[in-house]
Amino acid sequence: MRQAFFSTKLPQEVFDSFSNFHPVSKEELSLENALGCVLAEDFIAPEDLPRFPRATMDGYAVRAEDTFGTSEAVPVWLKVTGEIKMGEVPQKALNREEAIKIATGGMLPEGANAVVMVEHTQPIDETTIEVFKPVAPLENITLAGEDFSQGTLVLPQGHRLRPQDIGVLASLGKDKVRVYQCPRVAIISTGDEVVPVTEKIRPGQVRDVNSYTLSALVEESRCIPVRMGIVKDDFQTLRKACQKALEKADVVLLSGGSSVGVRDFTLEVIRSFASSEILCHGVSISPGKPTIFARVGEKAVWGLPGQVTSAIIVFLVLVKPFLHYISGEKVDFSFQPLPIKTITVRAKMKVNVPSVQGREDYLRVKLKEEDGILWAEPILGKSGLLNTLIKADGLVKIDLNVEGLDKGEEVEVALF
Amino acid sequence: MRQAFFSTKLPQEVFDSFSNFHPVSKEELSLENALGCVLAEDFIAPEDLPRFPRATMDGYAVRAEDTFGTSEAVPVWLKVTGEIKMGEVPQKALNREEAIKIATGGMLPEGANAVVMVEHTQPIDETTIEVFKPVAPLENITLAGEDFSQGTLVLPQGHRLRPQDIGVLASLGKDKVRVYQCPRVAIISTGDEVVPVTEKIRPGQVRDVNSYTLSALVEESRCIPVRMGIVKDDFQTLRKACQKALEKADVVLLSGGSSVGVRDFTLEVIRSFASSEILCHGVSISPGKPTIFARVGEKAVWGLPGQVTSAIIVFLVLVKPFLHYISGEKVDFSFQPLPIKTITVRAKMKVNVPSVQGREDYLRVKLKEEDGILWAEPILGKSGLLNTLIKADGLVKIDLNVEGLDKGEEVEVALF
Repeated sequence: MRQAFFSTKLPQEVFDSFSNFHPVSKEELSLENALGCVLAEDFIAPEDLPRFPRATMDGYAVRAEDTFGTSEAVPVWLKVTGEIKMGEVPQKALNREEAIKIATGGMLPEGANAVVMVEHTQPIDETTIEVFKPVAPLENITLAGEDFSQGTLVLPQGHRLRPQDIGVLASLGKDKVRVYQCPRVAIISTGDEVVPVTEKIRPGQVRDVNSYTLSALVEESRCIPVRMGIVKDDFQTLRKACQKALEKADVVLLSGGSSVGVRDFTLEVIRSFASSEILCHGVSISPGKPTIFARVGEKAVWGLPGQVTSAIIVFLVLVKPFLHYISGEKVDFSFQPLPIKTITVRAKMKVNVPSVQGREDYLRVKLKEEDGILWAEPILGKSGLLNTLIKADGLVKIDLNVEGLDKGEEVEVALF
Repeated sequence: MRQAFFSTKLPQEVFDSFSNFHPVSKEELSLENALGCVLAEDFIAPEDLPRFPRATMDGYAVRAEDTFGTSEAVPVWLKVTGEIKMGEVPQKALNREEAIKIATGGMLPEGANAVVMVEHTQPIDETTIEVFKPVAPLENITLAGEDFSQGTLVLPQGHRLRPQDIGVLASLGKDKVRVYQCPRVAIISTGDEVVPVTEKIRPGQVRDVNSYTLSALVEESRCIPVRMGIVKDDFQTLRKACQKALEKADVVLLSGGSSVGVRDFTLEVIRSFASSEILCHGVSISPGKPTIFARVGEKAVWGLPGQVTSAIIVFLVLVKPFLHYISGEKVDFSFQPLPIKTITVRAKMKVNVPSVQGREDYLRVKLKEEDGILWAEPILGKSGLLNTLIKADGLVKIDLNVEGLDKGEEVEVALF
């Protein structure tokens, strides 16, 4: 018998149900391996940065007061009492009407409160310079703690580390960081007609596109794909594969069996596990309506559409945000047109596109520039064809409460 | 003596000089490791996809002609002569007024030219169905070769593989792909005051921020960072480190010595190698003017500003496009505001920002929503401070020929 959908959920309701899950475990990584990982604890500056007052220009450390009133016409002469070597502590303090040579990054001597740029000085003899432009106190220097002062929150827990964050951690001596582990995501491809890509296929059979595509999407989401291979459409076989996947991974992705059809064992299999709960069966997005989201103990199971083109869109709209969520990242699901920030361009619709209210539509479009205007043209052809995803430049979202897009309307295109 | 800059180059001129270099070598990878790699050859469909006509719906394979004129009031009866098993070749052809049960993805039997959806049928007895909606020829089926026909160009050389491309390659049986190797990028940090992050530092010393930050940027550009460590500011030491780096890597990044200062050995060191050529010394961008770009034999050397905040911007504006270029990727350098596509949002400038004409300015901004408007507010504070990059949400570019930005002007913010 044909199973009815549970009441279809809105994407926002699916996001809300993520709170049934916890982020994965934590681990300590050396800083050089931490790019893209999510911080599992607040990072508080353990010391001042910089630790000492530094020159930000090549020139001379001076007392700013000694340069007040100088000009090209009325220069001031200062006695050069030495040079500060990079990486060293100045050997002597600066006195009135003295200057000490310093390079960018050098440590300011005691008594100095500014650096006069070398361009604004002129050597008179071995130990004397002429300064012909005044500097204000604190000019061309960075004070100790001016970048980050000890005890400040530098990066919060839940923050995904970017190159500049790695730089800040390095500058503050943090060579090991506590981060969330990358979630492990098991991928099961179902279907009696599906054969591994490396095998010869016979008429009637198709190659395992879904495992490869989903693994790549998982990898792109900074998670670890665990390829479980192809499973025949049979309750016991699928249950066994699921059991193994649940042992090996934090999340299980099933693709193939989520359409409401005669061979739909996915719900049955999920329900057969103790402490399982179907959180969602049916989402108001197109393509992707028959999506299943469930909990088995503390682990998540997603049933994705069998058509790989639909599975990709469900992944981008729902699964990727979930993977970011259990990666420990603080995610703002309100970003448009996709909840996980993505590269977008603005374009105008080339034609009218109707849509059903109460459903988010994801339209594949091609971009074309004509007369300086960037047009988004919907890709024609059956939505299940892979070539629609190759020809398309990106996705346009038609919102829940919108009846369609008008020709000429401005849209945000999420680039593939 | 202070060296004069060569005539400062425009970013576009720097991009033009990339043609002095060739992409790196090619290699063969198994498909599951190829995500994000750049195709080193055109991929032509070796066979039709799909290889046989398939059902795209669950239902019955029929001759469309037999359903013409049917309706709820005037249904037609068809004789069910069997069922097509998934993955198998139909055992018999379809004759007039017959139907064969088929599921989505099943192979269409000879004689059939459409599939009538199960929803539009009603079983009458064991071997008879009633069809109460007509189907057109080709409805609910995909023809052989309809997705890609044998001999079509599927993906061109120079294309960076996305998840959907991995899917297409899998579906066409390509389990090994020829791609460009990831370029190896050596990173040398210079400065007598710089110490490794893992070591204790003394006053006057700073930790090696640049190696960490640049390695992370290189990694993010899908290249392999080769950390050469810290080199003292001394001609011979730097030359030796450079020599070693040129042997180990395709590109060398030097940071520290590119400012026109007394300790500037970078140009001297580059010139000391046979068949070297300074392609650029000074670029009209801010920050980042003192950037050096050179060729030593077939390899590239970049001298980046010593201040890590400037080095990051030069990396994003110039070095990253170069790394993509030698990765074999066909790059369109005209993307805005950064040449390599990046996540952007639109915002309005919160204040007036002046700029110098004839120079591209990259402004760090913070985004703030007020009354439904997203504002971009320039980050105050010294540009060399790392906290400006942590506080900033992104970069705004002020174009070469623009004198500044007006308050309220709409800008594209490249998110960090």
